[in-house]
Amino acid sequence: MKTEVLLKEMGLELPNAPTPVGSYIPVQICGNIAYLSGQTSRINGVRRYVGKVGAEISEEEAYLSSRDACLNCLAALKVAIGDLDKVKKTVKLVGFVNSAPGFNQQPKAINGASDLLHKLYGENGKHARSAVGVAELPFNASVELEMVIELAD
Amino acid sequence: MKTEVLLKEMGLELPNAPTPVGSYIPVQICGNIAYLSGQTSRINGVRRYVGKVGAEISEEEAYLSSRDACLNCLAALKVAIGDLDKVKKTVKLVGFVNSAPGFNQQPKAINGASDLLHKLYGENGKHARSAVGVAELPFNASVELEMVIELAD
Amino acid sequence: MKTEVLLKEMGLELPNAPTPVGSYIPVQICGNIAYLSGQTSRINGVRRYVGKVGAEISEEEAYLSSRDACLNCLAALKVAIGDLDKVKKTVKLVGFVNSAPGFNQQPKAINGASDLLHKLYGENGKHARSAVGVAELPFNASVELEMVIELAD
Repeated sequence: MKTEVLLKEMGLELPNAPTPVGSYIPVQICGNIAYLSGQTSRINGVRRYVGKVGAEISEEEAYLSSRDACLNCLAALKVAIGDLDKVKKTVKLVGFVNSAPGFNQQPKAINGASDLLHKLYGENGKHARSAVGVAELPFNASVELEMVIELAD
Repeated sequence: MKTEVLLKEMGLELPNAPTPVGSYIPVQICGNIAYLSGQTSRINGVRRYVGKVGAEISEEEAYLSSRDACLNCLAALKVAIGDLDKVKKTVKLVGFVNSAPGFNQQPKAINGASDLLHKLYGENGKHARSAVGVAELPFNASVELEMVIELAD
Repeated sequence: MKTEVLLKEMGLELPNAPTPVGSYIPVQICGNIAYLSGQTSRINGVRRYVGKVGAEISEEEAYLSSRDACLNCLAALKVAIGDLDKVKKTVKLVGFVNSAPGFNQQPKAINGASDLLHKLYGENGKHARSAVGVAELPFNASVELEMVIELAD
């Protein structure tokens, strides 16, 4: 449980795995690839950082929002694979940022998720990524994050 | 042709495979994974449910729009693989919802696609998913849907 | 270096590989699949075609913007795999178009990338694709493009 120990040392903890808000499952595994559903910063059922980044939500809050969305992804992944140490490497992230008109710092928002993965998994936490500004998100979340993860055999 | 029989029992039928609206192909297969291009609810050449969800298009219409986009995905997949019974499992959906300001029920819209896949494929129809609200879609479609599908050997 | 010779014959050249604008890497390889980070038309550090398509940026400029984003993807891929002739086939593109209200020709914009891949790789340059209109993009880029590529063994 090395990954969870590291999380605790960072002052963070794994939330309860989020319940889906629609007709889907949080993780689908195909061979040694895990596809993760989009997650927001609704931690243990409580929605945080709600609103548009660049208006109601600051860049710094958006960073925390994407970090928390990443924690939800990891919580969902743990339920699916049993142990977060089974991550071989992070492959791909897409970060959808609920953007106020004129907000163009989506990468800084999504760094909250990427930085967490780097700290937890080191070299294996590196990943390809897209970050874009969308018009609306479910329940007015500020960030929605999806991931592709490679699992150890 | 069990899948198509089920479709008929649900009162639905497979549309003609949609012609691409740009320089791409509807399905690209890589190993046993099929990547499907984004589809809308243009059924047999007729555009339906055109406009922004939450304004011109209701949540209920958006549900049907994503269901029809899913039918188009299946029609495209059938052309590519010959028989929809060759689907081993559905892996990943992304649903882009053309959202009016303040519309935040993207998951309910995309359930139209997800519910159809569950009814057709049962346990194998479960999938990871993201649903986001975009600013505009091609030809003002209300929903665009893309899929990743695992094929039987 | 057949692919780069073809590029030159088309009057194009590979830009310098773009430096990431956040905590990610340009290409992550997983088995024989390369996942490419979102790229814009920032060529050799100079941002071009900045603004919303359908307002500040015309459809024709957006075509060039997505072509240039594709050149950046190829430049990043070359650094990762050494030789662009190692592309077995192009698999999947997602094109995010920074769209002014009412702009609904996203496919025409993303054809700039798709047409380039077809010209370079012929039949192997065909791919599945989604093209959507987003509210904002990093640094107000007009197009952001991500790709999945299958590599030769």
